[in-house]
Amino acid sequence: MRIGVDVGGTTVKIGIVDNYKILDCYSIKTNKDSLFDDIYKSIKEYISKNNINVSGIGFGLPGSVNNNYIKALPNVGLYDIDLKEIHNKYFKDINLYSTNDANCAALGEHLNNPKYHSSYLLTLGTGLGGGYIYNDKLVIGANCCTGEVGHMFIGSEFNFKCTCGLTNCLETIASATGVTRLYKLFSNSKEDITAKEVFDLAKSNDDIALHVIDTVSKALAHALANIQVTCDVDVFYLAGGVSLAGDILLNKVRKYYKEYAHYGVKDTPIEISTLKEKAGMLGSAYLW
Amino acid sequence: MRIGVDVGGTTVKIGIVDNYKILDCYSIKTNKDSLFDDIYKSIKEYISKNNINVSGIGFGLPGSVNNNYIKALPNVGLYDIDLKEIHNKYFKDINLYSTNDANCAALGEHLNNPKYHSSYLLTLGTGLGGGYIYNDKLVIGANCCTGEVGHMFIGSEFNFKCTCGLTNCLETIASATGVTRLYKLFSNSKEDITAKEVFDLAKSNDDIALHVIDTVSKALAHALANIQVTCDVDVFYLAGGVSLAGDILLNKVRKYYKEYAHYGVKDTPIEISTLKEKAGMLGSAYLW
Repeated sequence: MRIGVDVGGTTVKIGIVDNYKILDCYSIKTNKDSLFDDIYKSIKEYISKNNINVSGIGFGLPGSVNNNYIKALPNVGLYDIDLKEIHNKYFKDINLYSTNDANCAALGEHLNNPKYHSSYLLTLGTGLGGGYIYNDKLVIGANCCTGEVGHMFIGSEFNFKCTCGLTNCLETIASATGVTRLYKLFSNSKEDITAKEVFDLAKSNDDIALHVIDTVSKALAHALANIQVTCDVDVFYLAGGVSLAGDILLNKVRKYYKEYAHYGVKDTPIEISTLKEKAGMLGSAYLW
Repeated sequence: MRIGVDVGGTTVKIGIVDNYKILDCYSIKTNKDSLFDDIYKSIKEYISKNNINVSGIGFGLPGSVNNNYIKALPNVGLYDIDLKEIHNKYFKDINLYSTNDANCAALGEHLNNPKYHSSYLLTLGTGLGGGYIYNDKLVIGANCCTGEVGHMFIGSEFNFKCTCGLTNCLETIASATGVTRLYKLFSNSKEDITAKEVFDLAKSNDDIALHVIDTVSKALAHALANIQVTCDVDVFYLAGGVSLAGDILLNKVRKYYKEYAHYGVKDTPIEISTLKEKAGMLGSAYLW
């Protein structure tokens, strides 16, 4: 059996996986002060209680990690953690693997749809991440930056500044943050609103909310068209909070993609993740 | 030994390759009416004259090809050619491989620099093509469109219409055609000028020509930054006529790339192809 751990800002989801299926899963709270000890203690307990044989533990982490050394988990507030050292305290004889959470979600969703051999998944959450699968394997990249498509330049009239320091990144528009930012801009309002509230307004035909969805869909379609002339995958997946908008977003993204994509790649399917929040657990359990 | 054939609009270059080196090469004229018979007859003659053993013949073609069936070579004016059928007339027992010329140039340049294991090459010619190498192998893509980065959307103020039907494609700016188009626009002139003449003007500090190079460099830098968040390669190569501008272009592309690239990939090396017009022969000889 394999264990896949999906670390989030508020909860950690832990899955027990075999034969590309999540057999069991549970979650614990993300407690900054004892995060990885909490995770390892709970896994140790689970293993001894259920008497299972584990071939490895994989982590999907919301931040930058390289060779099991965590540089930063900004949403959790943790920096410079030697995950391998903690792992060895608990499981010296079980292998450890880790990468960022968007990569794990991409791999999980990919493994769940075995008819495709290459895919690109975009996670549209507070930020915007992604993961690229080629020949059924995750592409990590020379700098562990494959999938950082949230920082693709798509040239818009907004010139929104991104948290990364650049301007006009895809993430400034096509994330939950982007959705609320656009709604405030278009409605000339300073009141707080969530992305979900914007989608609900759109579903009741609110003009401003529909304009937001249109703008987000155009940005996403341009980004997918750019990804596709760069690596030409079998299928695209959209995941994360913004993807929960469902058909009202998906239909527009598909429509604009057909308009913007190079003629050779116009027919690439664009789907919403079916595994949703479980993709990360499955993917992290197949990093090896 | 391997034979690599690089088909161009005016000449066909034929290389005899072994151990990742071009041992000998020659060229013949591109004659539309007898193109592939000319090529095969010359190869047959070369082989019997030099008494060599050939394991395969690879073609780099300036157009779209899939499974050795050529759909279109627009610059030559040839369409719908079953290359396999012609090949079998001459060499039933030697394997045949083919892909587009930019893919071959990418593979050739990559093999010539064995310290890198992934790379992206852009050929800046009349049009703009590209090729992506991952794990030392050419990525072809689901629709044979990997590397069609000439049709990446980079959102500019120009709104140039591309030959592909889209607007604001990278190729409308960062190709030889783009260079002359920009020079005419900036100088408000209708006189013909070649890309080489624009570069020569820039080298003698002509303001308009320098502005063209600046514009082309910004577009290229944005495209490279986008490619890099999508697949994060070890190195970029620039090839083709526009790359012959040399340092005056390269230094600006490098400078703007550092400005536009995501912080995790700012240090990716950008180089001008060293194999130049020989890359295609080497690459086509290693399609298998």
